[in-house]
Amino acid sequence: MLKAILATGNSDKIIEIAAILRDVELLPRPSHLGDVDEAGDTLEDNARLKAIAVVEATGTLTIADDTGLEVDFLGGLPGVRTSRFAGENATYDDNIKKILAELEGIEVPRRTARFRTVAIACFPNGTEILTQGVLHGSIALAASGYGGFGYDPVFIPDETPGRTLAELSFEDKNSISHRGLAFRALAQRLKDY
Amino acid sequence: MLKAILATGNSDKIIEIAAILRDVELLPRPSHLGDVDEAGDTLEDNARLKAIAVVEATGTLTIADDTGLEVDFLGGLPGVRTSRFAGENATYDDNIKKILAELEGIEVPRRTARFRTVAIACFPNGTEILTQGVLHGSIALAASGYGGFGYDPVFIPDETPGRTLAELSFEDKNSISHRGLAFRALAQRLKDY
Repeated sequence: MLKAILATGNSDKIIEIAAILRDVELLPRPSHLGDVDEAGDTLEDNARLKAIAVVEATGTLTIADDTGLEVDFLGGLPGVRTSRFAGENATYDDNIKKILAELEGIEVPRRTARFRTVAIACFPNGTEILTQGVLHGSIALAASGYGGFGYDPVFIPDETPGRTLAELSFEDKNSISHRGLAFRALAQRLKDY
Repeated sequence: MLKAILATGNSDKIIEIAAILRDVELLPRPSHLGDVDEAGDTLEDNARLKAIAVVEATGTLTIADDTGLEVDFLGGLPGVRTSRFAGENATYDDNIKKILAELEGIEVPRRTARFRTVAIACFPNGTEILTQGVLHGSIALAASGYGGFGYDPVFIPDETPGRTLAELSFEDKNSISHRGLAFRALAQRLKDY
């Protein structure tokens, strides 16, 4: 089985990616490598920064992702600042409160948004495989549901009218989500490679 | 495939357990369930407390573990206080420094210790399966290695003289470790059940 380091320390992401990438043996990111400053201007740059730091230190195939929420009314924000929208050490709740506040009074048809995940696999020889997954939907008027993580309680996918991502089962979320799409595409490309 | 919630938010544990329990589809612990106070007097009690909180809230088969490091010279400490040995919010480094300080000047033959993992699977109908894994070894004179997590850099398994758990590959660690033994036994019992 293909082995790859998963360059994330976010336990919510790890458990989703492990469920999606069942044909890859995921190895942990070595703990002595410090956090990577996500200083890139794009999701692609940030995913690459995270993966390259690990592949260069270890010489082992490394997988990473970066995910952004793009809200049309906010001109595509929070985008690369998705996890830090309410500040550097923002919790999921802080970010949800901020996005609901920013869209206060905005009606449903103008709350369109999308989740975008860029997944990357970087080989020690410099080869890189990059895939993307996009989930279209809108920002709910209030948080609902306990599944998933991050902004899931306020994101209503177009495929599931009236239900947020946090109200879907783990399997249903992964079957339609940006992360599911990006990592299933990555798995296929790795298989073909 | 059997589905079970994994009742831990520790990303280091998640990635090890996902690698060991490849025949179980691991679901995330719902994020709205608060942390469980590990108030038990034994590893068994703590593993059970963690699992039961989740199975009662969700009605879904739940897997949990608790792991302790037992140092003979310290009368079996830190034991149930393993993750909090240097204080409530202790980091891995804090705990390593404390254990090395407690054993300062103690010679190798008196530094014997063991890692013990209790793994538990709790079904909604009240059935529970409990397994245990033990790894015998000793506390190193200084930290060494970057793999694994927790006390791995100061634990030398009897099977790998001169090398700490943190100096083994991910696969080699899992093949001999307390957590590997406990969860492979749990997987077998779940299969038989």
